[in-house]
Amino acid sequence: MDEFALIRALLERLPAPRPDVVVASGDDAAVVTPPRGQLVLTTDALVEGVHFLESTITRHNLGYKSLAVSISDIAAMGGEPLWATVTLAVSPSWREAELAELYDGLAEACSEFGCSVVGGDVVSTPGPFTVSIALVGKAERPILRSGARPGDILFVTGWLGGSAAGLDVLQGKHSASPVTQAALARCHQRPTPRIGLGLAAARAGVSALNDVSDGLASELNEIATASGVRCVIAENQLPIRPEVKEHARFAGRSAVDYALYGGEDYELVGAAPHEAFARLLAAANLYNVPVTAIGRCEDGDGVVMRTADGLEVVEAKGYNHFTSR
Amino acid sequence: MDEFALIRALLERLPAPRPDVVVASGDDAAVVTPPRGQLVLTTDALVEGVHFLESTITRHNLGYKSLAVSISDIAAMGGEPLWATVTLAVSPSWREAELAELYDGLAEACSEFGCSVVGGDVVSTPGPFTVSIALVGKAERPILRSGARPGDILFVTGWLGGSAAGLDVLQGKHSASPVTQAALARCHQRPTPRIGLGLAAARAGVSALNDVSDGLASELNEIATASGVRCVIAENQLPIRPEVKEHARFAGRSAVDYALYGGEDYELVGAAPHEAFARLLAAANLYNVPVTAIGRCEDGDGVVMRTADGLEVVEAKGYNHFTSR
Repeated sequence: MDEFALIRALLERLPAPRPDVVVASGDDAAVVTPPRGQLVLTTDALVEGVHFLESTITRHNLGYKSLAVSISDIAAMGGEPLWATVTLAVSPSWREAELAELYDGLAEACSEFGCSVVGGDVVSTPGPFTVSIALVGKAERPILRSGARPGDILFVTGWLGGSAAGLDVLQGKHSASPVTQAALARCHQRPTPRIGLGLAAARAGVSALNDVSDGLASELNEIATASGVRCVIAENQLPIRPEVKEHARFAGRSAVDYALYGGEDYELVGAAPHEAFARLLAAANLYNVPVTAIGRCEDGDGVVMRTADGLEVVEAKGYNHFTSR
Repeated sequence: MDEFALIRALLERLPAPRPDVVVASGDDAAVVTPPRGQLVLTTDALVEGVHFLESTITRHNLGYKSLAVSISDIAAMGGEPLWATVTLAVSPSWREAELAELYDGLAEACSEFGCSVVGGDVVSTPGPFTVSIALVGKAERPILRSGARPGDILFVTGWLGGSAAGLDVLQGKHSASPVTQAALARCHQRPTPRIGLGLAAARAGVSALNDVSDGLASELNEIATASGVRCVIAENQLPIRPEVKEHARFAGRSAVDYALYGGEDYELVGAAPHEAFARLLAAANLYNVPVTAIGRCEDGDGVVMRTADGLEVVEAKGYNHFTSR
């Protein structure tokens, strides 16, 4: 199948485009109608053998996750996703059926999160399979990571540590119960970007927002640096996923380490004045996902954590694929 | 240098962002203010060893060209470029200085064509270096490839064949004069997207527009198929670059083959009713680039060319990187 026929076959797997898509794929460029408010743009790439392994994620879930992680960036701006372009660099070992599975995963994420793939490029590579996604979203009031102020409450959505523990499970390390293993594997393969909570956070008037891609420690350090504040969190307030605690016991590791440094949880972490935090909590009831206060911002810099043994410095380590070379 | 420091160092090489860029790189996503009119979105990827070789293009010109070819897609919609995201999959053999050179080329194209790089991702790959660009532009009246009607004039901007002949030169094949060689190499490495002429074409009311990426033959076939017309062109009307004719004599090849099948010229090819074509010709005076009538649309399908020996069918062959596997 030539490039054009292949792309057409892949595009047919996608759901009908959003109403604001005037012309989807098939011409030199897609045509879309811009919304009111601001646009937000992000891009992410995943390389086989670097960011994922065939043994740790199915092609379908890779398609789902590759779009979900870009959507998470938009959610972290208090925005919602609109239009994506997808570039695949296809290595010789991949069959067309695998590309179709990946597109089915993309299609599922498009339907679930209300965005449209409006273009793409498929090229061959002698190297590893690489998927690169660019995503445009809208945000009426984009929330940066630089707005936190001393006195603000630090909060996080959902639960932490599940993705990294799930990767352990998928790599055959350690052996918690099968139910726990399945739950953790799902955290790694099928992250849920927090679009609704991001919108609620923006409307509530939070002061800073990030998503947990590189790990809570790394994201809090980014907020601290960008905002010029010190982030003080409490170890016993971290919403560690219960299955992570079970897994950590089997693994002989600290559950807190998974929560702080594991990364890829794609929860939202942010700062908010007290009143804005109260509004966010009220709105969060709609989403059936907890929003947990984990500490507060103070004058100063860096990130520290209160533990039973006193204050610990929390460094910005975590997943950083480039230094892993 | 870690990923974040590297990205910051690269971003510092770019020119100041457009006024509609509210927040450039550095947060989860860039923030931009949408224009009036429609948005147009496109994406392109270039893989070392597949789409380019170190021996045929410098890192600087690779950066320039990778953005220029995406801009050409926007020009082919009658639009102008606004914001780009750049994803680099960096192979171990690339040094940071080479990434800086590539960014200098991107920066030059940003300045020359009035767009801004507002985000990106840098990942490592054990495979070949890959640059993937997504570009958002605006178009008040996007021109598709499907609007050509019987009776319309077929036209092309500028000159054809230079890029493919330039690639021959850069690969050390054949030996026209040094001045010719330099001119052709430049065609291959530094294509000029026809933004102004694309806008002029949209305002003049042309009925269909494409850019010459895969070769004139391929693009005309796309217009014929999408519009449901037959494209009839005249061999002796093709604006073949004079240096291509000189090179073709040395190469013992047909200059017309370079023009029809060479590709990567990034000129515009389109169709227009007579009055719209007259308006386009008048407007084109501003741009110092010829607009040449090469034939017309008729009832029927496919593409044919009048030659001294009669009508020849022009097939949609050309560069098609995926089938070259």
